[in-house]
Amino acid sequence: MVDGFETYLDTHAGEAQLLLERLCSQPSIAAQHLGMAEMAELVESLLVGAGFNTRRLCVEGAPPAIYGEQRGSSPYTLLLYNHYDVQPAEPLELWHSPPFEPTVRDGKLYARGVSDNKGEIAARLSAFRALRGTSGELPVTIRWIIEGEEEVGSPHFEAVAERYADLLRADGCLWEGAGFDVAGRPTLVLGTKGLLYVQLDVQGAGTDAHSGSAPILPSAAWRLVEALASLRAPDGRVRIPGFYDAARSPTPAELEALADQTDMETEMRRAYQVDAFVDGLTGMALRKRQAFSPTSNIAGLLSGYTGEGVKTVLPARAMAKMDFRLVPDQDPQDILAKLRAHLDAEGYGDVRVSELGSAEPVVTPFDDPFVQRVIGIAESYAGQPPSIAPIIGGTLPLLGALRRHVGVPGLSAPGNPGYWASGAHAPNEHIRLDDLARAVRYNCHMFAGLAYGCCIVS
Amino acid sequence: MVDGFETYLDTHAGEAQLLLERLCSQPSIAAQHLGMAEMAELVESLLVGAGFNTRRLCVEGAPPAIYGEQRGSSPYTLLLYNHYDVQPAEPLELWHSPPFEPTVRDGKLYARGVSDNKGEIAARLSAFRALRGTSGELPVTIRWIIEGEEEVGSPHFEAVAERYADLLRADGCLWEGAGFDVAGRPTLVLGTKGLLYVQLDVQGAGTDAHSGSAPILPSAAWRLVEALASLRAPDGRVRIPGFYDAARSPTPAELEALADQTDMETEMRRAYQVDAFVDGLTGMALRKRQAFSPTSNIAGLLSGYTGEGVKTVLPARAMAKMDFRLVPDQDPQDILAKLRAHLDAEGYGDVRVSELGSAEPVVTPFDDPFVQRVIGIAESYAGQPPSIAPIIGGTLPLLGALRRHVGVPGLSAPGNPGYWASGAHAPNEHIRLDDLARAVRYNCHMFAGLAYGCCIVS
Repeated sequence: MVDGFETYLDTHAGEAQLLLERLCSQPSIAAQHLGMAEMAELVESLLVGAGFNTRRLCVEGAPPAIYGEQRGSSPYTLLLYNHYDVQPAEPLELWHSPPFEPTVRDGKLYARGVSDNKGEIAARLSAFRALRGTSGELPVTIRWIIEGEEEVGSPHFEAVAERYADLLRADGCLWEGAGFDVAGRPTLVLGTKGLLYVQLDVQGAGTDAHSGSAPILPSAAWRLVEALASLRAPDGRVRIPGFYDAARSPTPAELEALADQTDMETEMRRAYQVDAFVDGLTGMALRKRQAFSPTSNIAGLLSGYTGEGVKTVLPARAMAKMDFRLVPDQDPQDILAKLRAHLDAEGYGDVRVSELGSAEPVVTPFDDPFVQRVIGIAESYAGQPPSIAPIIGGTLPLLGALRRHVGVPGLSAPGNPGYWASGAHAPNEHIRLDDLARAVRYNCHMFAGLAYGCCIVS
Repeated sequence: MVDGFETYLDTHAGEAQLLLERLCSQPSIAAQHLGMAEMAELVESLLVGAGFNTRRLCVEGAPPAIYGEQRGSSPYTLLLYNHYDVQPAEPLELWHSPPFEPTVRDGKLYARGVSDNKGEIAARLSAFRALRGTSGELPVTIRWIIEGEEEVGSPHFEAVAERYADLLRADGCLWEGAGFDVAGRPTLVLGTKGLLYVQLDVQGAGTDAHSGSAPILPSAAWRLVEALASLRAPDGRVRIPGFYDAARSPTPAELEALADQTDMETEMRRAYQVDAFVDGLTGMALRKRQAFSPTSNIAGLLSGYTGEGVKTVLPARAMAKMDFRLVPDQDPQDILAKLRAHLDAEGYGDVRVSELGSAEPVVTPFDDPFVQRVIGIAESYAGQPPSIAPIIGGTLPLLGALRRHVGVPGLSAPGNPGYWASGAHAPNEHIRLDDLARAVRYNCHMFAGLAYGCCIVS
């Protein structure tokens, strides 16, 4: 059996942190085409070091996805998904240490990507090294794909999944991962929201002008503000006709899972530095809103002069970046068409809409055998049932392509060392180092448990 | 008599351009505290070189205003106003040559400030050098103040005018100047709009968040968009209660002047690169809107991620810069109070409003003797009556202080080499070099005319 890995972990305590610091020292911002080739190389070399046969899955226009395969002692085949790209680090001035210089403070490791999701790459690598170091081989066959465009909406994953579907087939898939909650319960995630990411551009006059001409010239900034205001009521409800039509109601099993979740409100308020959530929501109402409400979010706004002091300019251009998070069974292309139709109908035909990314919502049903098996492993590890999210606010843009071309059931399990206050996508992203050790240990149990059954904790 | 200056001008043809290139090579961006000390030094040295006794008018917190005085052969005393600061040069990527490297292309000189208003400083300096070079002295006594904060709303001019009122008294004042229109008519400007410049800041959650939390967290960007949308109807009408209360109607003389203006619509459409003006305005309706409509303009918008590609962030902060251009007899402090009251009444008490600058509208009446005298000189120079703007969209923030503490009547006359397409405040600001020569010549006539009467053209 494989429980000997505990000894390995005790004698190699700093290994996962070293791996993680190497991963986080290399910038890899897909949106800015920064460091992607170097990062692909680093990831591939680390997979080789953990015993994988690797290859690069290439499609035109994308940084290569790194693929690794390693045969295990049981016939069970598990697909793992991660991404080696990270979000941009801006606003840089809010970081207390440079985002690409991993820094330990008070038992926490700070760096862009340390939680989302290089931490999980390191935790998985470390688990494989431990399992091999203990038994000489892995308990299950692992197929691992690590792409480089998750944070820009995985625009080429469709092509990758289609071309390399045979490499990706497996009995189950562990997506980019979840963690443990404040009560020490493992959290499982069965679904992610869909996403439509667009940029709205408005052109007013052909050139910036002295604002003294404001009475007689078109204003790009006002036009954008008015177009945006037409999209959403102040109470948050999206005004685009038909926006909610395809949103299905939560099932009884989903509502039951929400009701059984650990109360994380205090931690979430502290993490986001808010006194209360919108509309004073709490309890089940808060959980339902978070899980099953689609949103229209303004991710960026830019027009005219934004520097220090005063500039009296009438800007010629204005821009907004928006993301719509979608619930089952909303379709991003349908929402895009409705957005365009709404703007046209409201007289904003001149507002240009460019799609920068899209993903469909994906949910794995509770009664899938893979789901039931992972629930059992999680419970046996923790001695209490996991806290299960039927769907989370985040998006894994690749899941739709994976479902269509590969058809493997999947979920997120606690292999990621991040926690509720990690600040993914925000300044000062970090993990707690204790959580990293736990993630490695959990991963070992998970991989072993899938091979031998659920009761591997002594 | 002084008409000998024509000979001087012919033999010193490049002098004004050289002076102007020196002035424009030195950045002097008040908003960014860039190059102000160096610019003050350069201006003072050029005034000394043109025969002025200079001193620095200092008040705490401001770059020094440069003051020069030179006694003339007649008792007439003329006050001149200019400013040595310029607008920020952003967006830099739209400039075809660096903004602080004066560059000649196709008979035009490109640089930030070349039109607004270093061109006029150069044209006045050059006129004084010509008049002295011809007669050994100036025809009138000149008092010249050149401040360094006009483009940030002249926040310290009130203190300067109060402390140094005795130095500024004169029979009339030529403000920062006007030019010639497309028909070759001199243009006179009798008034400028008031200004209220504010920054609106909104804080949502305490930190940027992953946009997957958008269903339950406050959004600073949406909050700002909604607050802005409450301020203005899509037709441009300002919704702040009482905003228009103090706006007086144009007088018959003002309407008559508007009707007599040269038609500049083609040139303006070309300069702003628009097919039409707002609401399809043309003719008198266009002129009335431009002259007598107060505006609320969005000069800048910023929130979240504005770089390349995709970042799925829920930004914690959002900011807008706004300028309100005001007509007689609107008062900027009254408008500020009404803006605050409106936001509070609409439920936007959390939207922070910071005043970054203000100025009252100032108009000199048609029947002022100084106005009549300048009209006569302009007509005698051009052989046709000037085109007169009772009020323009721009603002000279110092005029209120000048009126209160000094009381000298003023206007803008064609001493500025800029033209309707100069792009003041915009990228690729430029003048036509032929206009620079004309501005110098006109200034010579103007100064001589004020001393000796209006008929100095042979």
